[in-house]
Amino acid sequence: MISFTCDYSEGAHPKILERLAATNLEQLPGYGMDHYCESAKAKIREACAAPDADVFFLVGGTQTNSTVIAAMLRDYEGVVSAETGHIGVHEAGAVEYTGHKVLTIPGHRGKILPEELSSCLEAAVTDPNYEHMVFPGMVYISFPTEYGTIYSKQKLEEIRAICDKYSLPLFIDGARLGYGLMSPECDLTLPDIARLSDVFYIGGTKVGCFCGEAVVFPKGNAPAHFYTITKQHGAMMAKGRLLGIQFDTLFTDGLYFEISRYAIDMAMRLKEMLTEHGCTFFLDSPTNQQFVILENSKLEELSKHVAFDLWDKVDHDHTAVRFATSWATPPEHIDELRRWL
Amino acid sequence: MISFTCDYSEGAHPKILERLAATNLEQLPGYGMDHYCESAKAKIREACAAPDADVFFLVGGTQTNSTVIAAMLRDYEGVVSAETGHIGVHEAGAVEYTGHKVLTIPGHRGKILPEELSSCLEAAVTDPNYEHMVFPGMVYISFPTEYGTIYSKQKLEEIRAICDKYSLPLFIDGARLGYGLMSPECDLTLPDIARLSDVFYIGGTKVGCFCGEAVVFPKGNAPAHFYTITKQHGAMMAKGRLLGIQFDTLFTDGLYFEISRYAIDMAMRLKEMLTEHGCTFFLDSPTNQQFVILENSKLEELSKHVAFDLWDKVDHDHTAVRFATSWATPPEHIDELRRWL
Amino acid sequence: MISFTCDYSEGAHPKILERLAATNLEQLPGYGMDHYCESAKAKIREACAAPDADVFFLVGGTQTNSTVIAAMLRDYEGVVSAETGHIGVHEAGAVEYTGHKVLTIPGHRGKILPEELSSCLEAAVTDPNYEHMVFPGMVYISFPTEYGTIYSKQKLEEIRAICDKYSLPLFIDGARLGYGLMSPECDLTLPDIARLSDVFYIGGTKVGCFCGEAVVFPKGNAPAHFYTITKQHGAMMAKGRLLGIQFDTLFTDGLYFEISRYAIDMAMRLKEMLTEHGCTFFLDSPTNQQFVILENSKLEELSKHVAFDLWDKVDHDHTAVRFATSWATPPEHIDELRRWL
Amino acid sequence: MISFTCDYSEGAHPKILERLAATNLEQLPGYGMDHYCESAKAKIREACAAPDADVFFLVGGTQTNSTVIAAMLRDYEGVVSAETGHIGVHEAGAVEYTGHKVLTIPGHRGKILPEELSSCLEAAVTDPNYEHMVFPGMVYISFPTEYGTIYSKQKLEEIRAICDKYSLPLFIDGARLGYGLMSPECDLTLPDIARLSDVFYIGGTKVGCFCGEAVVFPKGNAPAHFYTITKQHGAMMAKGRLLGIQFDTLFTDGLYFEISRYAIDMAMRLKEMLTEHGCTFFLDSPTNQQFVILENSKLEELSKHVAFDLWDKVDHDHTAVRFATSWATPPEHIDELRRWL
Repeated sequence: MISFTCDYSEGAHPKILERLAATNLEQLPGYGMDHYCESAKAKIREACAAPDADVFFLVGGTQTNSTVIAAMLRDYEGVVSAETGHIGVHEAGAVEYTGHKVLTIPGHRGKILPEELSSCLEAAVTDPNYEHMVFPGMVYISFPTEYGTIYSKQKLEEIRAICDKYSLPLFIDGARLGYGLMSPECDLTLPDIARLSDVFYIGGTKVGCFCGEAVVFPKGNAPAHFYTITKQHGAMMAKGRLLGIQFDTLFTDGLYFEISRYAIDMAMRLKEMLTEHGCTFFLDSPTNQQFVILENSKLEELSKHVAFDLWDKVDHDHTAVRFATSWATPPEHIDELRRWL
Repeated sequence: MISFTCDYSEGAHPKILERLAATNLEQLPGYGMDHYCESAKAKIREACAAPDADVFFLVGGTQTNSTVIAAMLRDYEGVVSAETGHIGVHEAGAVEYTGHKVLTIPGHRGKILPEELSSCLEAAVTDPNYEHMVFPGMVYISFPTEYGTIYSKQKLEEIRAICDKYSLPLFIDGARLGYGLMSPECDLTLPDIARLSDVFYIGGTKVGCFCGEAVVFPKGNAPAHFYTITKQHGAMMAKGRLLGIQFDTLFTDGLYFEISRYAIDMAMRLKEMLTEHGCTFFLDSPTNQQFVILENSKLEELSKHVAFDLWDKVDHDHTAVRFATSWATPPEHIDELRRWL
Repeated sequence: MISFTCDYSEGAHPKILERLAATNLEQLPGYGMDHYCESAKAKIREACAAPDADVFFLVGGTQTNSTVIAAMLRDYEGVVSAETGHIGVHEAGAVEYTGHKVLTIPGHRGKILPEELSSCLEAAVTDPNYEHMVFPGMVYISFPTEYGTIYSKQKLEEIRAICDKYSLPLFIDGARLGYGLMSPECDLTLPDIARLSDVFYIGGTKVGCFCGEAVVFPKGNAPAHFYTITKQHGAMMAKGRLLGIQFDTLFTDGLYFEISRYAIDMAMRLKEMLTEHGCTFFLDSPTNQQFVILENSKLEELSKHVAFDLWDKVDHDHTAVRFATSWATPPEHIDELRRWL
Repeated sequence: MISFTCDYSEGAHPKILERLAATNLEQLPGYGMDHYCESAKAKIREACAAPDADVFFLVGGTQTNSTVIAAMLRDYEGVVSAETGHIGVHEAGAVEYTGHKVLTIPGHRGKILPEELSSCLEAAVTDPNYEHMVFPGMVYISFPTEYGTIYSKQKLEEIRAICDKYSLPLFIDGARLGYGLMSPECDLTLPDIARLSDVFYIGGTKVGCFCGEAVVFPKGNAPAHFYTITKQHGAMMAKGRLLGIQFDTLFTDGLYFEISRYAIDMAMRLKEMLTEHGCTFFLDSPTNQQFVILENSKLEELSKHVAFDLWDKVDHDHTAVRFATSWATPPEHIDELRRWL
């Protein structure tokens, strides 16, 4: 049965498999000290137009979020996030486990509004009980969001300006970064992301890797001893080569962007097909996740032939579902989905 | 330059690479819910003669240690370990980061003595200030130890009996488990390990995998919601297939034992060569790590041709060094090492 | 200048001071092992009609909340609270610091609604992603709430039934418990509180003590080694006598209830006076905290003569303020306040 | 039965009780914002000859240790302590609970040796695996130590110099500070303690208060937002007046020093009496704790008449016991002890 359940259903991009095989018996130092990691870091710095960037390779998204957040906050600080942000919902309390509160503001199809962020921060610093409360210590956004939406350059500049006003670092969760940057509606580039954030990561797990997230501190502003911090969080891979080789491959000849664009092409084809078919969209997403509303009877029938993700109950008779494409989605899967709709 | 630095210098066993390639485009559920994980778990249960065992796949050793220990202890409990135990030395305080103290007792070439464990526990429970102190909540040993030594079946039975007396679970860190079980001096089997412990792990990272440790609760005694706990610790891999396929391969046709034995064969050949060459051993190790004492001038000369690990300063003029073999050590590397000694 | 700022502006009830003086040179064991603590515990058990209750004396409210919550939750669990609950707002993230998330539901003048609690819990346990999320592990309510409101017996029974349905303990923050129980609108008794909760505390700091909160596990259901847990949290007082003597005094001849009722009498007189004066109430409170809306110009003038607490901005020209009475409020303070209104 | 069990057997110094009574109905702001706290801080700054010092009042010793240590360390750092240090033994793992390791070096009758501290730190920073280990982040000593011993000015200067060399803050646990400073063997003054440390506390609980420890950052070097940190740790007292008034009393007309000296006078009289009586001392203590070795039969007999602390088993027939004096020890208690010896 074909699946549109998520963007991590397959293994790794074939070029990654090739490189892993070709380098397999090279004896390399552990813990990210090998030359593939160095090479991958250099290529990432270049792609980000951030020559001073500190780059680290971690294994997965939840781990990366909790490690980065804990490393950048002081004990008495929390992280501001949309209430739908991944860190506050589907990470099993990994941020709180490190001692920090997730301070929520409303999410609008996954996005925060600059004016609401601003109000929240102003309210915090002017609260007479400020010193009895958790201090906002950084701002977290996801790009694209959990709803497949993306920020425009203007909105991101506004969020950046607010962070500057309140001296807070901005952290961009880029678990699906490529799928955002390659969206036809995106007016941001990777160098823009690097310029406008204090830390972000380039998701590998959902964009062609077996595993791996490349954390970038674009101004060479990694917290002191972030290397040791990753070790303490159990986030350092002994065979760092596995991460280095994957990212080195992704950032050779623009593979990361190419496969991201492919996923978006498939998503737009899927969206067109769903539109033609008369589906009602749950929300309008410009990236690789498409959300439609199905009658429950239709949903039940369809799920016999195609796998997809149940997103939300809409009413007694309808459910929102998610179809995700990825670097690995074959065009004929979309044709097959059409057949069963 | 050839390297004996450690047992994680190469990638993965070729059969693992093959399986990863062969299954690469299969669409599979995430988070360890795929059939490769199920198959690997079944094979591990069988190899352990533990049909009720709960098995989980985590990514790396430090992560596994801190996740398992935190999951099994109550807040007011600590873990008893040799003072040389990995958890108390080279894991950047990952156990303390989760709130727990490592309670140390002497290490004898990496091993704890049953009588010293017993004294420590008896002293704890009879201390009039017991309720003002950290309670011993579990016992941690590594097998083989950080010094390459192994426990005999008798000693392990004694430690087990002490744990039973004080109602403490016994945790065996098996990062190099295969290299211990295949040692000519070992009188323990994998089913013995499963029978005598409450939780242990079968190390993959150092025994043929890119990454991965298989945590086994042999009596079906996993702490409630251990799955969620791994998520909270950032220890759950989204593409669980990467771990499932690797362990499924290792536990097909006894590959894990075969490649472990190969590493031990290479280690014994190395040991013989070092003995013939008149080297002074730092300690007598029956596993894949061999420790010899070199004059510093010799060390400097040798390090131009061969990579190895500096272990400890012995005196002003001598240093203990470690040579490690693995599943990937070619016999000719030992010949080459001989040339430069 | 007279003050209605809060209910902890004065020292301790004179009878407490007397007892402290009278017993001062008695040599007593430390850490709560003295006979005054024992006596106080016995009297509290009797007042609660809970002969099996475990009772512990801690120092302050934030400390008590975070210690009790951490002691009762497993690592992967969070505490459900109104979004206005003290633990989520004015405790500087003390709960998160111990690793636990505060899971918020709407607050209605400080109170949770049984139906919203029920929906939240049902949604959690039926969520297909349940195992990737923080589990609700206990329910926290305050009585009276931060807004001076109280639950009726019927509502508390309903909340209890929901907790039973989902097997969750119910924790009642009783920092101002006496002021709730003595409210003319209250149909609950201390034995009701003990019967309907799994753990609660009898606030001393705000009801006549220098410091101290009596934690009650009414069914003898204290978590294992709660004594050691309080030590680990820095919540155990070396001279436990200070807490034991205070609570022993409060629970001799019903002093706790008597002084609580006095505070409520003063609050009702204050409320009447404010009503007569034509003040607009911010909300209707039946306990010792009264909230009215003042024009900002009036507020400024008043604050030259009387101290009170700024509660919330209502609009550009109006502010909600709080006047609190306590066991120590002299009737003439209310007269004086009337003069300046 | 008279007791020499510890130095916190009685309530508070009578002058403190008087001041508490005299100020009892003053309406004061909470959370340490009252004028008694301000006054006490000013007097402490003067007594320390540290005009820029930041001073905070916390409730108890374990709480103070864990709060100060957590506030001054980064996540990846641990605190260096004698293996007999209170933080590593009798505080139920409160330091580890905040995520930090206690890095132990040998204790010599409770004291660390400068040369062993230096070796430990040099070994740490030159370890090739440094980045995989817990970093020494501060040095903790107690003054007097848990064994009643004290550092000379020269030793403390040496320890200070080592801390400077490795850029580590020095924390002095002064739970019994007065009893150290007033020892006839002490060549250090309170200004010396302030000059030579980065943070220390002036113990109140054991020196005349009901509770309370005054934390001093002598160079105005409190960690940012230490106030909020104390709140997060549950270490902030709502009625801060209780602490402010006690310390204001202790630092008026030198009361702290006077009552400390009295305790030492009693200790020296006790020591003389024990010597005359032919007792064998367990160790030679110049402060208020005196340790002697008793035959077990004698111990049993004596314990029918006098309470004291069992310290350590010496051999099968002998036990080391502790007799402690305090500001409250009546001279006739020493006479009575003599009677039963």
